[in-house]
Amino acid sequence: MNRSFAIDAILGSLITAIVLVLTGLAPVLAQEPLPSWNDTQAKARIIKFVQETVAEGGEGYVAPDDRIAVFDNDGTLWSEQPYYIQLGFVLDRVKALAPLHPEWKAKEPFKSVLDGDLKEVAKSGEKGLVELVMATHGGMTTDQFGAIVSQWFETATHPKTGKPYTSMTYVPMRELLDYLRANGFTTYIVSGGGVEFMRPIAEKLYGIPPQQVVGSTIQTEYAIVGDVPVLRRLPKIDFIDDGPGKPAGINKFIGRRPIFVAGNSDGDYEMARWTTAAKGPGFAMIVHHTDEGREYSYDRQSPFGKLDKALDEAKRRNWLLVDMKNDWKKIFSFEN
Amino acid sequence: MNRSFAIDAILGSLITAIVLVLTGLAPVLAQEPLPSWNDTQAKARIIKFVQETVAEGGEGYVAPDDRIAVFDNDGTLWSEQPYYIQLGFVLDRVKALAPLHPEWKAKEPFKSVLDGDLKEVAKSGEKGLVELVMATHGGMTTDQFGAIVSQWFETATHPKTGKPYTSMTYVPMRELLDYLRANGFTTYIVSGGGVEFMRPIAEKLYGIPPQQVVGSTIQTEYAIVGDVPVLRRLPKIDFIDDGPGKPAGINKFIGRRPIFVAGNSDGDYEMARWTTAAKGPGFAMIVHHTDEGREYSYDRQSPFGKLDKALDEAKRRNWLLVDMKNDWKKIFSFEN
Repeated sequence: MNRSFAIDAILGSLITAIVLVLTGLAPVLAQEPLPSWNDTQAKARIIKFVQETVAEGGEGYVAPDDRIAVFDNDGTLWSEQPYYIQLGFVLDRVKALAPLHPEWKAKEPFKSVLDGDLKEVAKSGEKGLVELVMATHGGMTTDQFGAIVSQWFETATHPKTGKPYTSMTYVPMRELLDYLRANGFTTYIVSGGGVEFMRPIAEKLYGIPPQQVVGSTIQTEYAIVGDVPVLRRLPKIDFIDDGPGKPAGINKFIGRRPIFVAGNSDGDYEMARWTTAAKGPGFAMIVHHTDEGREYSYDRQSPFGKLDKALDEAKRRNWLLVDMKNDWKKIFSFEN
Repeated sequence: MNRSFAIDAILGSLITAIVLVLTGLAPVLAQEPLPSWNDTQAKARIIKFVQETVAEGGEGYVAPDDRIAVFDNDGTLWSEQPYYIQLGFVLDRVKALAPLHPEWKAKEPFKSVLDGDLKEVAKSGEKGLVELVMATHGGMTTDQFGAIVSQWFETATHPKTGKPYTSMTYVPMRELLDYLRANGFTTYIVSGGGVEFMRPIAEKLYGIPPQQVVGSTIQTEYAIVGDVPVLRRLPKIDFIDDGPGKPAGINKFIGRRPIFVAGNSDGDYEMARWTTAAKGPGFAMIVHHTDEGREYSYDRQSPFGKLDKALDEAKRRNWLLVDMKNDWKKIFSFEN
């Protein structure tokens, strides 16, 4: 590097820095955090925790490297009713693959999927569900599966709202992700859903890159096709990232204990316990679905996102219970 | 925020930015990259690749998010002779735990470990090794294991050099990690070693945080002890991150295909293939241990870090073969 070029580089970097600082400050000055949250206790408690986390010298201060926040996905970041979005994918894939599997017309649970009889599908229980997942998630390479998922999300729509599944995310939660990141947090998804089902869209929907998505996995196998190495997805479960599997998944993939956790069901109970058992600060929130009008209202009896034990424990342990109806000004971006 | 405070904040940030830019530029101006590398082909090829990666508008340009670099650990970042450092840990732990296990005095492979007869230990093969690992790596909580590992590294020394194991890292490789990060790469370890053996020291040794360490795992189990949630390490293997397991591990943990890979043995062959099979730019390097004087000299016949197939393929596929003796000016920081 010659001298005048070096000076140019310094000047160039300085100007860039000044522009970055000014444009970075503008929104901070212009906008309160969490605009789609009502001014209730919930919002106040979140902001208080985050402000204490970043206040150097304070008792609640946490170094940036340790500001790990984990979010469940189904029912926490996007809708999980009337059934998990990944189940919608499974149903569509069974239909798409049916011409290659004439035997499915006579074989449960495939038959009922093709007949559109979800009640009958449900009767096949967990065993039937696993069969459906293996038949639709295994047997191709990882690259192929990623492409199938991305393509599906381009057109698939929610059965109740008719909107694209990709617009079924909760605006207040996306604001919360942004707010945490703006305060030096690293945000992760920790979901029972499939890692490779979420990764193709997590960055676009939530600003969460692939390496920050923890979820259930199936086994893959390295193989050479022609002279090209591929990873084949096997129809074998590798890891179920749900319930007690969530703290195990966090430990395995992240290797640090989070200080902030958001969930909405009993499947998030153990990771909420794990997060709030740290010696330092820890914050847990449970999204309670109380809004039949704008979204859904369900808890103890729901087949998807059952919230029973964690509902009782949230009160006992002083976890923030978010009342969707009262705490959220807006739920979906497509609302008027 | 009132107006004068806002202006103060802007000015304060500006000054900080200017200082950061100037101090950030200083070392760039002052120092050539990779100072412990000799001025050979190897260094030139690495620098050329990195410069092309960051050159916006160029054919080799890669966006920062996709600048993923993966490094094997044993024999690539630190010494793996006369045996893996983690095996040194296993041997020491067997000795430390022996008073609790009087039966080990009569039971192989434990007996031979206690007798210090490594040849006899080796005869127990992989089955024996797994037994030793399970007996020393399972049965405690994740927090307890982390503390045991950290404590061990404080005093454990290398059998040949007598130096702490933590000083058995290769200076040229640490410089390479720094150089890549300075150019916007995210650096990962992808090792056959145990994730929870490496994480307690990877940040200190290599600047690689826990969530960027991929390795072999054992199963953990969530449990409540008293009222405190813990993760218990079970004596069961979960995942072996070696050979064809490495691309699978990369896919599982990182979810992106790397563009840079460094290894030193046949255990790294598949991840080198996987990395260089990307459509865009891809760079693979294999560290060849050729320096009996300063470190070790071994390849096709070594029980640890066997380099045979990958040695032949490196030439065929134009992977960079680093000749430790000729390409590295310095290997360890404790050299004169």
